[in-house]
Amino acid sequence: MTQIDTVLAQAEAGMAAAQQRWINWLRIPSIGAAPEHAADCRAAAEFARQQLEDMGFDAKLRETGGHPAIVAHHPGPAARLGGGEVPHLLYYGHYDVQPADPLSLWNSPPFEPTIVDGPHGPRVYARGAVDDKGQVAMWLGAFRAWFDATGGLPCRITALIEGEEETGSVNFKPFVIANRDELKADICIISDTGMWDIDTPAISSSLRGMTYMEVTLKAASRDLHSGMYGGSALNPINALTRALGQLTDDQGRIQVPGFYDGITDISAGKANQWASLGFDESKFLGDIGLSVPVGEAGRGALERLWARPTVDICGIWGGYSGPGTKTVIAAEASAKVSFRLVPGQDPEAVQQGFIAFMKARVPADAKLEFTTFGTSPGLEMNTDSPFMQAAQAALTDEYGRPAVMIGCGGSIPVVDTITRELGMDSVLMGFGLDDDQVHSPNEKFEVRCFQQGLRSHARLLGKLAG
Amino acid sequence: MTQIDTVLAQAEAGMAAAQQRWINWLRIPSIGAAPEHAADCRAAAEFARQQLEDMGFDAKLRETGGHPAIVAHHPGPAARLGGGEVPHLLYYGHYDVQPADPLSLWNSPPFEPTIVDGPHGPRVYARGAVDDKGQVAMWLGAFRAWFDATGGLPCRITALIEGEEETGSVNFKPFVIANRDELKADICIISDTGMWDIDTPAISSSLRGMTYMEVTLKAASRDLHSGMYGGSALNPINALTRALGQLTDDQGRIQVPGFYDGITDISAGKANQWASLGFDESKFLGDIGLSVPVGEAGRGALERLWARPTVDICGIWGGYSGPGTKTVIAAEASAKVSFRLVPGQDPEAVQQGFIAFMKARVPADAKLEFTTFGTSPGLEMNTDSPFMQAAQAALTDEYGRPAVMIGCGGSIPVVDTITRELGMDSVLMGFGLDDDQVHSPNEKFEVRCFQQGLRSHARLLGKLAG
Repeated sequence: MTQIDTVLAQAEAGMAAAQQRWINWLRIPSIGAAPEHAADCRAAAEFARQQLEDMGFDAKLRETGGHPAIVAHHPGPAARLGGGEVPHLLYYGHYDVQPADPLSLWNSPPFEPTIVDGPHGPRVYARGAVDDKGQVAMWLGAFRAWFDATGGLPCRITALIEGEEETGSVNFKPFVIANRDELKADICIISDTGMWDIDTPAISSSLRGMTYMEVTLKAASRDLHSGMYGGSALNPINALTRALGQLTDDQGRIQVPGFYDGITDISAGKANQWASLGFDESKFLGDIGLSVPVGEAGRGALERLWARPTVDICGIWGGYSGPGTKTVIAAEASAKVSFRLVPGQDPEAVQQGFIAFMKARVPADAKLEFTTFGTSPGLEMNTDSPFMQAAQAALTDEYGRPAVMIGCGGSIPVVDTITRELGMDSVLMGFGLDDDQVHSPNEKFEVRCFQQGLRSHARLLGKLAG
Repeated sequence: MTQIDTVLAQAEAGMAAAQQRWINWLRIPSIGAAPEHAADCRAAAEFARQQLEDMGFDAKLRETGGHPAIVAHHPGPAARLGGGEVPHLLYYGHYDVQPADPLSLWNSPPFEPTIVDGPHGPRVYARGAVDDKGQVAMWLGAFRAWFDATGGLPCRITALIEGEEETGSVNFKPFVIANRDELKADICIISDTGMWDIDTPAISSSLRGMTYMEVTLKAASRDLHSGMYGGSALNPINALTRALGQLTDDQGRIQVPGFYDGITDISAGKANQWASLGFDESKFLGDIGLSVPVGEAGRGALERLWARPTVDICGIWGGYSGPGTKTVIAAEASAKVSFRLVPGQDPEAVQQGFIAFMKARVPADAKLEFTTFGTSPGLEMNTDSPFMQAAQAALTDEYGRPAVMIGCGGSIPVVDTITRELGMDSVLMGFGLDDDQVHSPNEKFEVRCFQQGLRSHARLLGKLAG
């Protein structure tokens, strides 16, 4: 039996326990955006820290100004058989989860993990099932398999788990920069992305960035009777919808000034590779009850999802939303606006552009207030490194077929900091599926994906140990 | 001492008790739009019914399909001294009030009436302080003064008080039609409008009508991750703001097809009379923290407020509105849209026009749902009748100056039914002030307005009795 076979056998022996730890973690409602869940966030951090400590890591909760981060160091094998250096790996993930509302749309309570049989076997429903507790629990499980099978870990490892990923890593990014020397490693390994499908592993070669802002438009000093004041007094909802309604033209082009500055079209090679994936946008949309794609006219489906920037109003509110009627001109109205960005765009320039866009489109009396919730640029990964080759080999061993290179439309705010400030590449090896309902009610993760992801991580450690 | 002097002396003697009844009525949270306040609405109706019964009315709560109406009949003087017929007066008002939210903006609880000294003496803060419990309490107090002073009432009176005015009188209008013969009188007297200022009484010669609709735009079958789906999946908030944002052009003209059909400009005579009022729009707007009027370009200030139709989005909601960020494409978004209408416009045509407007402006995948909360046309009153002259005389006696004829930008849905179905004119003699914060937090009514309004109603009864 080779060493990796021993480790994989141990992974199987420990699988039930690994899943139980994952499920127990999901019970902690670590909603990063909600101040009232701050203690839950800390509890979720401590839950992971303890596991790392149990495997011989020097594992600490570290204060960041936001929710605490976990930083844990393991020196790797004390004495290396073949001599030479082992690589130093930085595993990054996050324990914070998105808000669970609207709660009424969940089939089971979001923080009571519920196992249901699906077409691919059992799956776990819970907020954070996959994003990102489930995916972090996979690599924690891989560490455990190595630790239990060999008494140690085959590489030097730093684990870095944050609590602000879903809210822009506003405090975590400066923490990473401030601890640059401690955190710097040879490669960053992240599981927070998806597979191509349940049989086909994938490595993500790009991430979209984000500028996420809240805008409030204030008008009169109080709510007004729409009969007494309608026709004279500024209505902030009218004005806000009028401005936001101009964010795109009828070709889906975003009208924020300078928005497309710096973007280059994808290469012919990448276009061809993506075309070879045979993406079926009709099925992709059909699965969610839609049929007609939106986005920029004249762009391919995967290009729109992975390599073109977008604007989505993630929330809007103002005035009366109760039953029946209230004939009111509200005093203010607000919206949350998310721009997904691609490499070349400057997130701060987009932020300033949006502010200018709004100011140019509201009446003189409108008072605008903006809040920016962190920004991150779009990123392109280095796909040629030996670490990528090792990940590719590990996935091929596990799935019996090579991983496809895909883009990721989502954002992981800190990856830019890791890239630019720590000078490190990242390998984005994720195991989510399109239908995992990430950020939605009834988020789930397939147990099969969890198990194959755990084994893939165990295999990757073996490949990197050499 | 003439009879009216006796009655006015009795009004003074009973003023404290009249104010206490008004205040006690305000304690009942009769929010018509909120189903959970149905019992409160019934209690508020019973509160008024009992007062009418105590004054010799045959007073009953009558079921309407919505909140109950009060119908109360008093035959008037048993034997009339001078012989001849006394007029039959229909007093109309409503006991339902607007929702009180946002509660956080109230300086005192909306259903705990609070007396505060202001620049015109004491004022009462509460939801419904003026609209319409305060104004109904004035004429109930005038009835009481006559009843206590003379043992009866000087005219035949039918009192009709509903509980659906703020929600479009959807069930009440058919009730009025079904009881046409019982309710028909010589004139309808309504106090649900305003004065010119606290020293200058006013009679409203017109009302705007209303078409109030809720629209919901549904997209995907569930909330979506804005990174995974942004650029392909329809965002209902994007689509809703895009459509609603086109409701007016840059001249403030409403773009609903056929919207202005049937409207005629105000007469030169009316324009001159309104100009003579010396309305100061800068002050009107300055009092609420604004400075630049909105509405149709090229129209006068009072014309925009009283004689031109408007569109106001009274509420909008969709997606995430909590703290921080949620990167979500919501499954649906909604808005409440109110059109104030003027004479000549067909409210049902406006309703159909809005539906067509929205359908023409949303993407193919958008599923639109509409709810209409009652409609009423704009109305022009007959200002030449002897009843108007009597009201004018009563107000002149009370205030020492004649009432000015004004328009009213608000709507009283049932007045159209009374006009068309019962064939009756209405006298709109109201005592609210512009700064009463009707439909807003901190609604108030000046005690001085209440007292002068009560006396004006007592005087009007004397004028009409002849």
